[in-house]
Amino acid sequence: MRRFIPALAFGLSIVSLPAGADAPKPATPNDIIAAAPAKDWVRIAPSDLMVMDLAPDASGKARRVVIQLMPAPFSQGWVGNIRKLVAARWFDGIAVVRAQDNYVVQWGDPDGETEGKAKALPAGLGTVTEAKYVTHQSMHAVCDRDVCPQAPVAIDATFQQISADPYAGSIGFGSGWPFAFEEGTGEAWPVHCYGMVGVGRNTSPDTGTGAELYTVIGQAPRQLDRNIALVGRVIAGMEHLSTLPRGTGDLGFYKTPQERTPIASVRLGSDVSGLPAYEYLSTESASFAAYVDKRANRKDDFYIQPAGGVDVCNVPVPIREVSR
Amino acid sequence: MRRFIPALAFGLSIVSLPAGADAPKPATPNDIIAAAPAKDWVRIAPSDLMVMDLAPDASGKARRVVIQLMPAPFSQGWVGNIRKLVAARWFDGIAVVRAQDNYVVQWGDPDGETEGKAKALPAGLGTVTEAKYVTHQSMHAVCDRDVCPQAPVAIDATFQQISADPYAGSIGFGSGWPFAFEEGTGEAWPVHCYGMVGVGRNTSPDTGTGAELYTVIGQAPRQLDRNIALVGRVIAGMEHLSTLPRGTGDLGFYKTPQERTPIASVRLGSDVSGLPAYEYLSTESASFAAYVDKRANRKDDFYIQPAGGVDVCNVPVPIREVSR
Repeated sequence: MRRFIPALAFGLSIVSLPAGADAPKPATPNDIIAAAPAKDWVRIAPSDLMVMDLAPDASGKARRVVIQLMPAPFSQGWVGNIRKLVAARWFDGIAVVRAQDNYVVQWGDPDGETEGKAKALPAGLGTVTEAKYVTHQSMHAVCDRDVCPQAPVAIDATFQQISADPYAGSIGFGSGWPFAFEEGTGEAWPVHCYGMVGVGRNTSPDTGTGAELYTVIGQAPRQLDRNIALVGRVIAGMEHLSTLPRGTGDLGFYKTPQERTPIASVRLGSDVSGLPAYEYLSTESASFAAYVDKRANRKDDFYIQPAGGVDVCNVPVPIREVSR
Repeated sequence: MRRFIPALAFGLSIVSLPAGADAPKPATPNDIIAAAPAKDWVRIAPSDLMVMDLAPDASGKARRVVIQLMPAPFSQGWVGNIRKLVAARWFDGIAVVRAQDNYVVQWGDPDGETEGKAKALPAGLGTVTEAKYVTHQSMHAVCDRDVCPQAPVAIDATFQQISADPYAGSIGFGSGWPFAFEEGTGEAWPVHCYGMVGVGRNTSPDTGTGAELYTVIGQAPRQLDRNIALVGRVIAGMEHLSTLPRGTGDLGFYKTPQERTPIASVRLGSDVSGLPAYEYLSTESASFAAYVDKRANRKDDFYIQPAGGVDVCNVPVPIREVSR
């Protein structure tokens, strides 16, 4: 489970309240998460998880990264491609090829741009030709290639205007994900927060296939919103990507093959035995609303000045690991 | 020098323009930085740099982190303490004790909370008792302990309203730094962006001494603004901190001493021979204004949808290394 406690000092847990204090401790975001009833937690279907095992580290320790795929109606052309790539075991044996500090870690076929050496893509998979980086509030099937394999997310009813945003008219949460939203056009789109997974591509109008992916390891590069497809987010094992040595080539690419981290295998969660179950705190729940409010207005033993607002990417949706 | 190019695909540098294209390539933020005239670059005084050498890594490679101290009138009580700690070589031999993913890396005395074992602080150094986390637009000496060792930064004239901000009425840049600003109260304060360095503290009203520091390694935790003192920013070697293994204890603290990274020495830049010089792009220059505008409105071979805004922490002030 992710930790949200932001205390910054040593030994904070052993700090005593003043003797005789009987006022209840003010609630923190973590208190709210801990108190959320079971009904506020939503199980993520294992078939919506992508389990990426990197090669073990230098000391032989396993490095597993778990990615939740983006729900319909967003980015489904690319998500469909990725499901085909996983089914074909295409990702097995490729590598992390880039790590640029405060930006992205990226993985793909190291020979992808070398004619005659690029790994062949599975049949039935191609470049997503229409750049459908946005969809509409009304949720009328605006899915890539008109394929909506799942029930559309109900963002129209649940968007919350939690704060001013530099990049969009409104921001909020739906079905467990952060989104941006423009009332004028009725458009909605997923946002580039820390840990989000997107589709590497070349210059426009290329939109990428999904065979080359990256995740955000720094300040949210929101300028990429509506310019690149977001297809998921890392929900466990993020540290195995964020701590990788930064590449010293242009854009943080590794200069030598030896610097790359091989990817041993990528499987859907439904094909991995012994995988824990994962749940997110329903973004439609009262618990989540209280959590957002507390993220925006910290006032407790540590915080003396509540901010009165919060960035959409500074409200990580709580996700927990549970025994099955 | 930091890299800002955000292209995300392989081999972008070898992509050819269409044959016969004669329109000039649209300017990117990097183009603007590259074209900035010499007069727009400001040399950082070596005496305002703190050079922190971590113990070499497993392969024996040096790990140097360069931190620029916060200019007056901000946080000068703590900055003064830090100068005393450096002069007393107090930081030599302490360690990085915490790395929490998407939050902070923190260093200090590992025994700081253990009675009888804590490393003695230099004479004349104490806790900053007044939490002066903000100052005023008018720049009338609102320095901690009424000591303003340097000329105050001229933020009143240079603040730019570049975009909506979830945390403050206005945001902008002055003297090479990002700041937040509230017109109603006339208050201004530095902001918790990636790479900023702050003072760890215990629960309020403790404000910390400066002997325990952290840097931001993820999404800007702006809720800490006005709650903790910011005393500087990492301008080189950030990757040596951001790639450290994450701690598995509470709040990302390392569970065992072996996991910590020792700090070999911390010196002022003016006491380090052979240190390169560093320059920042003047935030008062036309080049910087053009750079901000381009960060907010990307439209080129890669970007098809300009954002129309940008987060203050997504406009890293360009800093370059130059031969002396």
